[in-house]
Amino acid sequence: MCELLGMSANVPTDICFSFTGLMQRGGRTGPHRDGWGIAFYEGRGSRTFHDPRPSCDSEIARLVQRYSIKSRIVISHIRRANRGRVCLENTHPFTRELWGRHWTFAHNGQLKGVKRLPLGAYLPIGSTDSEHAFCWLLGQVRERFPRLPREPRTLWRFIGERAQALHRLGVLNFLLSDSRHLYAHCSTSLAWITRRAPFGEARLSDADMTVDFQRETTPDDVVTVIATRPLTTNESWNVMAPGELVVFEAGEVCGQGGSVAAADRATG
Amino acid sequence: MCELLGMSANVPTDICFSFTGLMQRGGRTGPHRDGWGIAFYEGRGSRTFHDPRPSCDSEIARLVQRYSIKSRIVISHIRRANRGRVCLENTHPFTRELWGRHWTFAHNGQLKGVKRLPLGAYLPIGSTDSEHAFCWLLGQVRERFPRLPREPRTLWRFIGERAQALHRLGVLNFLLSDSRHLYAHCSTSLAWITRRAPFGEARLSDADMTVDFQRETTPDDVVTVIATRPLTTNESWNVMAPGELVVFEAGEVCGQGGSVAAADRATG
Repeated sequence: MCELLGMSANVPTDICFSFTGLMQRGGRTGPHRDGWGIAFYEGRGSRTFHDPRPSCDSEIARLVQRYSIKSRIVISHIRRANRGRVCLENTHPFTRELWGRHWTFAHNGQLKGVKRLPLGAYLPIGSTDSEHAFCWLLGQVRERFPRLPREPRTLWRFIGERAQALHRLGVLNFLLSDSRHLYAHCSTSLAWITRRAPFGEARLSDADMTVDFQRETTPDDVVTVIATRPLTTNESWNVMAPGELVVFEAGEVCGQGGSVAAADRATG
Repeated sequence: MCELLGMSANVPTDICFSFTGLMQRGGRTGPHRDGWGIAFYEGRGSRTFHDPRPSCDSEIARLVQRYSIKSRIVISHIRRANRGRVCLENTHPFTRELWGRHWTFAHNGQLKGVKRLPLGAYLPIGSTDSEHAFCWLLGQVRERFPRLPREPRTLWRFIGERAQALHRLGVLNFLLSDSRHLYAHCSTSLAWITRRAPFGEARLSDADMTVDFQRETTPDDVVTVIATRPLTTNESWNVMAPGELVVFEAGEVCGQGGSVAAADRATG
């Protein structure tokens, strides 16, 4: 089962997500009865599609499968509701604006007592722990950096520190983006793989989800896919360590932090 | 031509928008080559669909036409780009969060010098005058009311005053919602009609857009439609006056303000 799925690429990539497995079970049986959502960045803008109650005839899923959306950053989430009722406002990913950028957040896990963390500039619209955690995290960033810091690493380090604080409350696997960078934080399960053109076998899949890469690529294309679990068995995925934060830009790792040193990262 | 279209209803209403005329011309000729967008509220949550470059085979338009979305509040916008290039982040409606509510804004008109207005808590992601005006307006509301005021009229009056200030800069027809109320401000052209069950002729249309009401209604259903221009000729639409602000809740007018007194409102 794949709860989080993300992509970072150096060119707008026509990645195609199929939710066949999910849709077949959707709303009937299995753990995914509580909806899914996906955000595609196009430049500074982003599109988000939410399906609080997936079903085998979901129009939204059909659109996402069929519609060619070229994107550099994608964040997708399949929900198992453990906090907050099943409704649109509780469906990931969540979005807010900071510094004139769209921020998007999707989370897997439970965080005990997260709602006791005091909020600042951002308030939740729904009732999930996850949205509360996102509002807290982004509020902290905003308070610390009223403007976008010049040195990206300063921001990454700060997000890593705050992610640590949340991580202490429970399980915190998340994907976060500001339209330029994609942050992946691992608490229990997150893995990533970078593919470079030519892509060869263009398909990644598990029981729920299939990722098809665009067949026509340029020799310089770089695409990283991040998923709850490796989607292929014949490739070396970078399995992230608990507490690890990795930052991607244009398909490449550009920063690492969190409570676990880069050296501890298990690769392959 | 209908640039703004809104709905406020007392029950989740399966309103069906068809963009046949728009799609036929979309991206080729006519003034609507610059995209459209639509927001549907479902409880506290909202879905927004954007199509920066409409075309006759738009998947998004197809989805919106086919997909039954039951909503109490809808805001739709067809864009003629006069400021800001054609891209996703410049496509209305725009959204921000305030007091844990989704705010949505769509605007028709040009505002001279609006970008000189100093911004507060909200910054534009794109480059349109409209998003700047929205960020300014919502920032003003937030600064004046750090929390949701107890008395709704206090808020309506304040929004009316700030809308006046923007109105002085040019043309300001807008639709705004916080998931509960729908604000309609007229500068040059905006009209509304309230229909009560039984709806009789269930269709409203002009060259671009058709609104089909749900056929099965309860005897208590109330639906108000707000549009740039009346969509029917055989009914009495309330044609708004320049500077007028009308606030709707659950399909009914609940407040009026702005620079023009309620008495001046032209009805019918």
